[in-house]
Amino acid sequence: MLHILFLVALLFSSSSHAADFCVAKLRGAGNPSGYACRSPANVTADDFVFKGLAAAGNTTNIISAAVTPAFVQQFPGLNGLGISTARLDLAPGGVVPMHTHPAATEILYVVYGKITAGFISSANTPYVNTLKTGEVMVFPQGLLHFQINAGGKPALAIVSFNSPEPGLQILDFALFGNSLSSALIEKTTFLDDAQVKKLKSVLGGTG
Amino acid sequence: MLHILFLVALLFSSSSHAADFCVAKLRGAGNPSGYACRSPANVTADDFVFKGLAAAGNTTNIISAAVTPAFVQQFPGLNGLGISTARLDLAPGGVVPMHTHPAATEILYVVYGKITAGFISSANTPYVNTLKTGEVMVFPQGLLHFQINAGGKPALAIVSFNSPEPGLQILDFALFGNSLSSALIEKTTFLDDAQVKKLKSVLGGTG
Amino acid sequence: MLHILFLVALLFSSSSHAADFCVAKLRGAGNPSGYACRSPANVTADDFVFKGLAAAGNTTNIISAAVTPAFVQQFPGLNGLGISTARLDLAPGGVVPMHTHPAATEILYVVYGKITAGFISSANTPYVNTLKTGEVMVFPQGLLHFQINAGGKPALAIVSFNSPEPGLQILDFALFGNSLSSALIEKTTFLDDAQVKKLKSVLGGTG
Amino acid sequence: MLHILFLVALLFSSSSHAADFCVAKLRGAGNPSGYACRSPANVTADDFVFKGLAAAGNTTNIISAAVTPAFVQQFPGLNGLGISTARLDLAPGGVVPMHTHPAATEILYVVYGKITAGFISSANTPYVNTLKTGEVMVFPQGLLHFQINAGGKPALAIVSFNSPEPGLQILDFALFGNSLSSALIEKTTFLDDAQVKKLKSVLGGTG
Amino acid sequence: MLHILFLVALLFSSSSHAADFCVAKLRGAGNPSGYACRSPANVTADDFVFKGLAAAGNTTNIISAAVTPAFVQQFPGLNGLGISTARLDLAPGGVVPMHTHPAATEILYVVYGKITAGFISSANTPYVNTLKTGEVMVFPQGLLHFQINAGGKPALAIVSFNSPEPGLQILDFALFGNSLSSALIEKTTFLDDAQVKKLKSVLGGTG
Amino acid sequence: MLHILFLVALLFSSSSHAADFCVAKLRGAGNPSGYACRSPANVTADDFVFKGLAAAGNTTNIISAAVTPAFVQQFPGLNGLGISTARLDLAPGGVVPMHTHPAATEILYVVYGKITAGFISSANTPYVNTLKTGEVMVFPQGLLHFQINAGGKPALAIVSFNSPEPGLQILDFALFGNSLSSALIEKTTFLDDAQVKKLKSVLGGTG
Repeated sequence: MLHILFLVALLFSSSSHAADFCVAKLRGAGNPSGYACRSPANVTADDFVFKGLAAAGNTTNIISAAVTPAFVQQFPGLNGLGISTARLDLAPGGVVPMHTHPAATEILYVVYGKITAGFISSANTPYVNTLKTGEVMVFPQGLLHFQINAGGKPALAIVSFNSPEPGLQILDFALFGNSLSSALIEKTTFLDDAQVKKLKSVLGGTG
Repeated sequence: MLHILFLVALLFSSSSHAADFCVAKLRGAGNPSGYACRSPANVTADDFVFKGLAAAGNTTNIISAAVTPAFVQQFPGLNGLGISTARLDLAPGGVVPMHTHPAATEILYVVYGKITAGFISSANTPYVNTLKTGEVMVFPQGLLHFQINAGGKPALAIVSFNSPEPGLQILDFALFGNSLSSALIEKTTFLDDAQVKKLKSVLGGTG
Repeated sequence: MLHILFLVALLFSSSSHAADFCVAKLRGAGNPSGYACRSPANVTADDFVFKGLAAAGNTTNIISAAVTPAFVQQFPGLNGLGISTARLDLAPGGVVPMHTHPAATEILYVVYGKITAGFISSANTPYVNTLKTGEVMVFPQGLLHFQINAGGKPALAIVSFNSPEPGLQILDFALFGNSLSSALIEKTTFLDDAQVKKLKSVLGGTG
Repeated sequence: MLHILFLVALLFSSSSHAADFCVAKLRGAGNPSGYACRSPANVTADDFVFKGLAAAGNTTNIISAAVTPAFVQQFPGLNGLGISTARLDLAPGGVVPMHTHPAATEILYVVYGKITAGFISSANTPYVNTLKTGEVMVFPQGLLHFQINAGGKPALAIVSFNSPEPGLQILDFALFGNSLSSALIEKTTFLDDAQVKKLKSVLGGTG
Repeated sequence: MLHILFLVALLFSSSSHAADFCVAKLRGAGNPSGYACRSPANVTADDFVFKGLAAAGNTTNIISAAVTPAFVQQFPGLNGLGISTARLDLAPGGVVPMHTHPAATEILYVVYGKITAGFISSANTPYVNTLKTGEVMVFPQGLLHFQINAGGKPALAIVSFNSPEPGLQILDFALFGNSLSSALIEKTTFLDDAQVKKLKSVLGGTG
Repeated sequence: MLHILFLVALLFSSSSHAADFCVAKLRGAGNPSGYACRSPANVTADDFVFKGLAAAGNTTNIISAAVTPAFVQQFPGLNGLGISTARLDLAPGGVVPMHTHPAATEILYVVYGKITAGFISSANTPYVNTLKTGEVMVFPQGLLHFQINAGGKPALAIVSFNSPEPGLQILDFALFGNSLSSALIEKTTFLDDAQVKKLKSVLGGTG
């Protein structure tokens, strides 16, 4: 028996790398597969738990909504494990605006409330549904999608992604919240100059 | 403009295969990547919604718990999308017994109640936490893990997996719920003959 | 020697599946990995060649540009090989409008002319360059990007993707070229009603 | 010709990274894709050879068996190459107890002797075979499996895995060889208290 | 308890697709992920065993060697499982000539005898070793490599691959065993005309 | 609105790792997934552009051809993005000799000129085509292939690969441009001693 114990110890003890997980050291340089692993000796059960989704996000903002992520940057235990999650709080009238996740499919579960959600395919077909408590919808990777509170009461959804770093590109921020010139935006989106400048002004864009 | 419209149509119309998704035809033969795709012309928004998690599972059973899956077999819209989900209902005293998912990492979100959950690593280290409403825990792929109701009230968790077919191997069913001979089980688990036969009898195993 | 010849033949002859390639039967149902393979016995050298990029696309349209794809639907030899290509013709003033490829990174080579191209990251940072003949730019997977003729003469670019089905979601078509209701678009994009209706009218959208 | 030589040298000489392999520096922090690469200049033919499987493992232990791994921790040349191997020595009566490899499929070749081996599927079906010299069996990823000497003489098997770090979770060690409390084990496995405590005592578990 | 049994059955019984494996129907059309799955109801333990490596290959040929594959075409149980194996018999003087596996890394274990084996990297560096019984060598994916009997006695090696269809391109057959014209071969290899024609004649090539 | 801005900043600002890209620090040790990421704060638009393909390669050499790569070592912005490119200049009579890319499929576009190109499958079947301006050919991963100028004028092709490090093994350099002994080469290729020594002398090989 001692022999087995010794063997099993031998398999893993000489290594900085656990076979099963790789809790991120977020401070070092990442690489295409994620972050460097913390030594397994310094990993505890707490590293696999994230408490930051327990509290509602602050929906006192112009979208009356909040997205609280539990991606690898917030939850280092997810590094290399191919999954992440987030909570969506939607006050009455709240909306998670049109956005994409460049690196992951999303699945959404309605914890409470009523949510209208949809995505648009590469063939330009919209797929829109109104979901009630306990219902689930999937949003294929990289496609434009949105979520809107469809009831008069607060709604909560939990979403999961098949990547620890799904990325998040919110259309309005991508177009109007940076220094991309109005001329370029107009030429590539067919939006009117006044419209572009109005939204740039709201979202802090320049140029 | 007609030219663009034509082009975009051309990209996808001659194909039985949407670029973005592949809603499963469950009846045909599957293959290692999943199931054949239903024609995009026959796909509707409903195919991306699953309502089967809205109702609680029946926990009137010896584990006082129920697992309700939304895997590709229940939710064909997940085919090829690399994700799935399930609900866990835990009545007071309920337990989801020791099990593995051979093909996926799991992430769990507590909708309500209090749950003690844990997994055991390849280095035989247990990582156990007690989770409250809104807390999240991750279970790396292929490792033994469990969930137990840790409060006196019903608990609900939503779990997600980074595969549409995570698989599910419940330890007791794998060992005692089939025709694997008692002699083989005893030899490979060091369990006593009486113990093996007792559990075989409870779980319907033979041999 | 006969023995070897026999062996090598044996390895592959009994199979409908070549070890190296899988030229698509486009008519059957696809699956998440692509299309069924044509029998290797029916595959010829021509199946690995695509001539459809030799002629310029028709740029007599409102964008003064044309995208001619060589994806698996046009070029069945690419099935399962993880790559595809396309040509972009940009007449003077031409533009490939803001779009994404949900399933692939793109690399662009300027065959002739001058092209301003850019993408916007998940962190909302624009990365814009003006490229001359022979210069190359990469567009990471799933991010909004565009190409504009930056000279007074026609320009040609060849782009490649690391998927046989990169997908193509053109922002304006996704938003304005379908039946997504104006109210939903406005709520999820912050665009003005007049702007939405104007573009719906140009791009054939309803609702 | 000098030009070609120069070109080929140029392709690789400025890099710390060989295109083909990445022999591990085991001491540094790993990451989800494995370990950092040793400089190709310091790599020799010996780095691709492992001699540690040449000697039989010591089977003088309670399982009359030994598993000698050639995983990336023992054989750094495997880093990033997607494969590993191990030898199983089974003295008469020997058994490799019920276990899983969370991250790899296993293929087993009987070098000599007679071995009964089996796995249990997610559908709880056991697949058991008795193998003779030269026979091969495959064990799909993440499923419980075992190997038993089925003859009266020593047996040797060589197994391979499609990962340099397949992981190894031996059921008895996972359940009884650590500090997981007896109460938790009993609740999640339905095993009797006496059984759990007996095995904990044998395998060095506490709690 | 009946409830659990019912649930577990429900998870898998309505499907033609087992969560864990996909034994190939070799006769139908393959696809990029492999072959269609046989119904799990028709799968038995025998499907996971291959006996074809138990007998030595016939080495009475000009290379005094034989390669006996257990790829998915010979061993349908490997379909989708990411692994395969083969046996190499090397009579005295035997050689497995220079070849590549386009789709897999190879790991070799010497069952008996003495074998000189080597591969050549993309940087043109040869890595050559002489291996004795029980020693292991790895050959990274896609690189030219070879095995030679280095003793005066028969040698046997077992090799494994991290793909069920590793492919096999034997250099001499690729160059000289088909209808590729002598002129093309000479132009692309710098080999002399007499040399090319001599080997074409031995290996059955035309042109 | 400030809340959203804050949130989006929060998602990415605390990290050394952009969600979308990972521009390589080439100097550090690589790992199986590529190189460490430069901090996103130090990344500019220029990092996604490569100008090194704008000038023709020098074809004044014995093959009258030049391959100019834009792999991750030359173009660090490709790190982790799964794609790369190269230009092939073929003077009249020029040839890119028989070679493989162990880690990628290649797609070729003829910018100008006429090129005969071909590959040989694992089943030893040659697939050869003569391509004109604008035509495209695909070469499946890991297979021997070549390109020859088939006109009397210079030709230019742009090739792309589905890996940032496709690797490049030129048959003649692999066999004759290093220290692999003539005896080993002859034994594993069936080439005559005089032929081997002649090519070793041309290509700088020893042994």
